[in-house]
Amino acid sequence: MLMYIAEFLGTMILILLGDGVVANVNLDKSGMKGGGSIQVSFAWGFAVMIPAFIFGAASGAHFNPAVTVALAADGSLPWDLVPGYVIAQFAGAFTGAVLVYLLFKDQLDATESQATKRGVFCTSPAIPNTGRNLLSEAIGTFVLVFAIKGIGQTGAVPGLSNLFVFGIIVSIGMSLGGLTGYAINPARDLGPRLAHAVLPIKDKGSSNWKYAPIVLFGPLIGALAAVLLYSAIPWA
Amino acid sequence: MLMYIAEFLGTMILILLGDGVVANVNLDKSGMKGGGSIQVSFAWGFAVMIPAFIFGAASGAHFNPAVTVALAADGSLPWDLVPGYVIAQFAGAFTGAVLVYLLFKDQLDATESQATKRGVFCTSPAIPNTGRNLLSEAIGTFVLVFAIKGIGQTGAVPGLSNLFVFGIIVSIGMSLGGLTGYAINPARDLGPRLAHAVLPIKDKGSSNWKYAPIVLFGPLIGALAAVLLYSAIPWA
Amino acid sequence: MLMYIAEFLGTMILILLGDGVVANVNLDKSGMKGGGSIQVSFAWGFAVMIPAFIFGAASGAHFNPAVTVALAADGSLPWDLVPGYVIAQFAGAFTGAVLVYLLFKDQLDATESQATKRGVFCTSPAIPNTGRNLLSEAIGTFVLVFAIKGIGQTGAVPGLSNLFVFGIIVSIGMSLGGLTGYAINPARDLGPRLAHAVLPIKDKGSSNWKYAPIVLFGPLIGALAAVLLYSAIPWA
Amino acid sequence: MLMYIAEFLGTMILILLGDGVVANVNLDKSGMKGGGSIQVSFAWGFAVMIPAFIFGAASGAHFNPAVTVALAADGSLPWDLVPGYVIAQFAGAFTGAVLVYLLFKDQLDATESQATKRGVFCTSPAIPNTGRNLLSEAIGTFVLVFAIKGIGQTGAVPGLSNLFVFGIIVSIGMSLGGLTGYAINPARDLGPRLAHAVLPIKDKGSSNWKYAPIVLFGPLIGALAAVLLYSAIPWA
Repeated sequence: MLMYIAEFLGTMILILLGDGVVANVNLDKSGMKGGGSIQVSFAWGFAVMIPAFIFGAASGAHFNPAVTVALAADGSLPWDLVPGYVIAQFAGAFTGAVLVYLLFKDQLDATESQATKRGVFCTSPAIPNTGRNLLSEAIGTFVLVFAIKGIGQTGAVPGLSNLFVFGIIVSIGMSLGGLTGYAINPARDLGPRLAHAVLPIKDKGSSNWKYAPIVLFGPLIGALAAVLLYSAIPWA
Repeated sequence: MLMYIAEFLGTMILILLGDGVVANVNLDKSGMKGGGSIQVSFAWGFAVMIPAFIFGAASGAHFNPAVTVALAADGSLPWDLVPGYVIAQFAGAFTGAVLVYLLFKDQLDATESQATKRGVFCTSPAIPNTGRNLLSEAIGTFVLVFAIKGIGQTGAVPGLSNLFVFGIIVSIGMSLGGLTGYAINPARDLGPRLAHAVLPIKDKGSSNWKYAPIVLFGPLIGALAAVLLYSAIPWA
Repeated sequence: MLMYIAEFLGTMILILLGDGVVANVNLDKSGMKGGGSIQVSFAWGFAVMIPAFIFGAASGAHFNPAVTVALAADGSLPWDLVPGYVIAQFAGAFTGAVLVYLLFKDQLDATESQATKRGVFCTSPAIPNTGRNLLSEAIGTFVLVFAIKGIGQTGAVPGLSNLFVFGIIVSIGMSLGGLTGYAINPARDLGPRLAHAVLPIKDKGSSNWKYAPIVLFGPLIGALAAVLLYSAIPWA
Repeated sequence: MLMYIAEFLGTMILILLGDGVVANVNLDKSGMKGGGSIQVSFAWGFAVMIPAFIFGAASGAHFNPAVTVALAADGSLPWDLVPGYVIAQFAGAFTGAVLVYLLFKDQLDATESQATKRGVFCTSPAIPNTGRNLLSEAIGTFVLVFAIKGIGQTGAVPGLSNLFVFGIIVSIGMSLGGLTGYAINPARDLGPRLAHAVLPIKDKGSSNWKYAPIVLFGPLIGALAAVLLYSAIPWA
């Protein structure tokens, strides 16, 4: 039970802080409007690092169905825990997005652009292109999962892995984030997208559900490729 | 006695460096004018981290009455130490703000905007809204205190926790700072607000005391909610 | 065999993330266009740190022929491993650049400037000047290799060295990167330059091969000078 | 002897990377022109951290006469080592500045502003005011030395202190750097100032020696105050 609580609360904090930074730097009448891609990339790194160190011991701190499925495929997680993990992740992401809505409601009201408002909650590609957007999400998630697995090679002292996790997230954002907004996590995108769809956001426009398959299948493909390649390496 | 000295000096350094960065990037005729929200967020993180590693062993490095009260409510700190801690924190914050005044007096003189001058010392909301501003301070402080408690789950090697504390502060600033300026600490806001009120700052305008209850009660509510939830989790 | 796989994959990830950030902040129609030199410098740091912690135990995580040759000259690596390392590094860098091309093809198509497009793949000097550009690459690589050797003086706990490596790369970029784009690694520059030459990039212009000797000899000279000086110090 | 070599080479690298970033973001025709105060602050942090981890075991990694004198006053360093340390520090700083000149000569030639050119080498106040500038340098150095002493309270694992040192430097820069450019180190300012005076920099203008006493006495006063206060605290 603890592990599901951990995945729920951890994903909630992840989205509170992660969708939070997007609202914080993009919405009109936010005191930090204009922070740009550097602030967004660093803040998503912290948004993952903080619940990761809190809940790492409790659940492994996945907060990401693609990670959960890949670790199950990998043999690192029993398959029968997967449904509970994934439900907790989506519920946590949805709840985190509701908190962001409650906090930034006045700024959302003050912002005209529907794309900017939706962008607080979920991702969209800079140039729509199904194949290439899928590749972007797959390669981003590949780096995420391959690097997380690779932490096991470091022999790092306890606690230090959280700093590597921070670095992985910031890195993917800074290097590849301009392509599709680096969802690299179906719960991170679809939970808040659902929140966008059901919350009474003023003049909100479409939730763009037709993009949803890309943030579902791209991360899954990338995560599975990562554990496959990782297992194929003769690590000695 | 050591613990009170530590809380006094630590909060003084916190405000020297924290209010310092706001002065540094916002006042006219500062050589770093324009650093913006990224510099502010990182610098507040260091402003907490530095006194935290110096005084962590001496007093626990609270520097924040909301943290002190929550840890007392939690059973982690004897209640009879609370008054001394809180007095030391407010006195330290006030003294730090006086140092910032002495250092930046020429820049304060050169700056016309009263809001910018007051903003060096204390926080204000981007959009005034009592309920939502209170929520912003409560949720920011909730993340602060919940994450600080959560460091106990990491088993991290000695010293590393200071880097997590740095990350927590930067994270809250980058993700939620544009709402109310993330006081998340009654001493951090009210000590320097008092300094603003009593110091002979040129053409300073109002100290906006009517906002004070929000930075007092918001952090307290958030901190207490954090230790309550933390205690309710079956950490195994 | 593992060490060659490690050097290949590590250099591939290095270039995917490193050339990635240049594309991400410079190409038109990237959602992170405009991140500038701070994002580039930090992201290259992570681009090295991530494969370094994954593959450090497997191969020493050179990803750089200048490092490999210097460590062989130094006696830290058997000379007969050098050819395999170097081939793996160039092949990995080339492959990473192909991935960047596949990911950013739509943005490359949308970008007019040939210099910007080539800049995604390989470096060029701000002011062409053979002697001084060579000196820039030599001194940058000197700092890289001397500092990497110097990590051995720290007695740091396992894993921490990866954070120092991150700091070294960011430092060289932030402090000297505006001179020649800090290749400081023949594979990092020439592998992607070859990719630029052979890939069907739209309206790509010259690959500027006449600059190639500088990113080959500069790093080699700097790396050898670093191990020479390091060995000459009476470390006690 | 090793300790003097360490102080010489360490201070040289410090100034190469530290004056380097100022040149890198401020000179015309640098590819990273415009990086601003965030890049400057972070890069000076790395500029100290890198020689600190290389030479910490060899000499204590002062690179700063104010630190050396304060630690002697403190009883942490024998007084008879002070002259050698200080000479090595000034010589290293001068040599580092010569390297920056050699690297950035074409950019220095391309830059018209004499203040910008001198600013690569040494500091100047945003608003000249002898008393307040002295206070700025004294308080900045106070934080530096007090925090360095305070690392001894953390019980941190080996190597981690280098990250705290990084944080201290970035913090002082980000929070107080806009006042006088945070020399906080007589060698850092006067060594390169001498280089500015003697090197054949094109159309260089005055080296502003009348400001020199401030970066000499301010840091000394602050450093001595720091060890005095630190010793007065009943650390238990």
